[in-house]
Amino acid sequence: MSDATTPVAALKDAIARFAAVRGWQPYHTPKNLAMALASEVGELCEVFRWLTPEESRAAPADATLRAAIADELADVANIVFLLSEQTGIDLSEAVQAKMVKNEIKYPRPVQPSGEGAGAGGDRLGV
Amino acid sequence: MSDATTPVAALKDAIARFAAVRGWQPYHTPKNLAMALASEVGELCEVFRWLTPEESRAAPADATLRAAIADELADVANIVFLLSEQTGIDLSEAVQAKMVKNEIKYPRPVQPSGEGAGAGGDRLGV
Amino acid sequence: MSDATTPVAALKDAIARFAAVRGWQPYHTPKNLAMALASEVGELCEVFRWLTPEESRAAPADATLRAAIADELADVANIVFLLSEQTGIDLSEAVQAKMVKNEIKYPRPVQPSGEGAGAGGDRLGV
Amino acid sequence: MSDATTPVAALKDAIARFAAVRGWQPYHTPKNLAMALASEVGELCEVFRWLTPEESRAAPADATLRAAIADELADVANIVFLLSEQTGIDLSEAVQAKMVKNEIKYPRPVQPSGEGAGAGGDRLGV
Repeated sequence: MSDATTPVAALKDAIARFAAVRGWQPYHTPKNLAMALASEVGELCEVFRWLTPEESRAAPADATLRAAIADELADVANIVFLLSEQTGIDLSEAVQAKMVKNEIKYPRPVQPSGEGAGAGGDRLGV
Repeated sequence: MSDATTPVAALKDAIARFAAVRGWQPYHTPKNLAMALASEVGELCEVFRWLTPEESRAAPADATLRAAIADELADVANIVFLLSEQTGIDLSEAVQAKMVKNEIKYPRPVQPSGEGAGAGGDRLGV
Repeated sequence: MSDATTPVAALKDAIARFAAVRGWQPYHTPKNLAMALASEVGELCEVFRWLTPEESRAAPADATLRAAIADELADVANIVFLLSEQTGIDLSEAVQAKMVKNEIKYPRPVQPSGEGAGAGGDRLGV
Repeated sequence: MSDATTPVAALKDAIARFAAVRGWQPYHTPKNLAMALASEVGELCEVFRWLTPEESRAAPADATLRAAIADELADVANIVFLLSEQTGIDLSEAVQAKMVKNEIKYPRPVQPSGEGAGAGGDRLGV
């Protein structure tokens, strides 16, 4: 199971089933899931908080740090999938719709290596 | 493009290309991306913060709230994809590895409708 | 030492000294402290994430929950104090300046019990 | 009104009154306030997310950045005060109790300039 071959829906279904058979879904209101997302993102920030940006680039090469990052990234992703499932908002469609908006808001620069629109505050296309 | 038919890699590639042609990648260290994730999750929390859990369940039925949720969910997802890309950690593999751990940590209950292991604090399999 | 009798500066000085004698200040850049704040707020959110709003009101009456809330609240407060110290921004002055802005943005209603300006999204004066 | 001369209670009372006369307190359950804290901390992270740690140290010298930091710091502080008020947990006592615990957990080093206990992951006394 890799990103190249795994539809988003497969991951969503897996975590939704995992929660359902354990009877957790009554707790998975969008409000509670958003709060859980804040918790898990906090744990991800904890991995990097004392590292320099350069040390953070090197972190995946360290076995312990790589495992911690993978663990927290999976936790964050799972809540995103649960939120998509619980709200009925298709994630791929939402991402694509946002990208269409951002292609307009942040036009591609003429020179691909130069910094185009979005320099300064944003740089995410968000 | 829907979750049923979209591989995770397609979404990762799209946001990675979007950032690359705009020259944003020097800013996309894992440390900075984790911080950006905290910002975007904060915006998602803002949508729900004064709603009751029940109101949050109904929110996707409201056009304005649905659009706001979809927008923030896409933003959060995009940073998760950028983090996966920048760290070289395959998201599907990380999610699957976490699920294997959690199947052991939170065994399925005998009665699927009953609440199994994980009652209390967790209820996410995280 | 209680809120009635403790100047903000006393708490700021205490945590700043605690960090200084341990040689932690090189790590306490505003960027890193903001990231640490996201981590600690995540832990606070973890206390409440599966509770209903009503259960969260009752939580301080439970000894274990009260201790957890006090612990996380202290952690969050300490980072706010460190940020005030490191940036040289006086917290009381900043809070007062914001309140002046908000008195204009959210005028007091005529009937004190009715909901005045700010109904809907904000309700914090932020 | 400066940190040297302002008791914590004065700031707590001010924001509590501000909210009360506007009828906002029904929304200020600890759960909702924790979620609001995640939102405001997200805004603070947004100020620093693309800055290097060194640039973040220099940020308060820039008038625009200083104003943004002060604004977000005030917002975060106000929610901490509201949480202290709503839960009945005295902030100064909580901070002091945590410091006592941390003096034991992170003993002062013999040489004050050397790095003492807490090197590595924590460095906050949290």
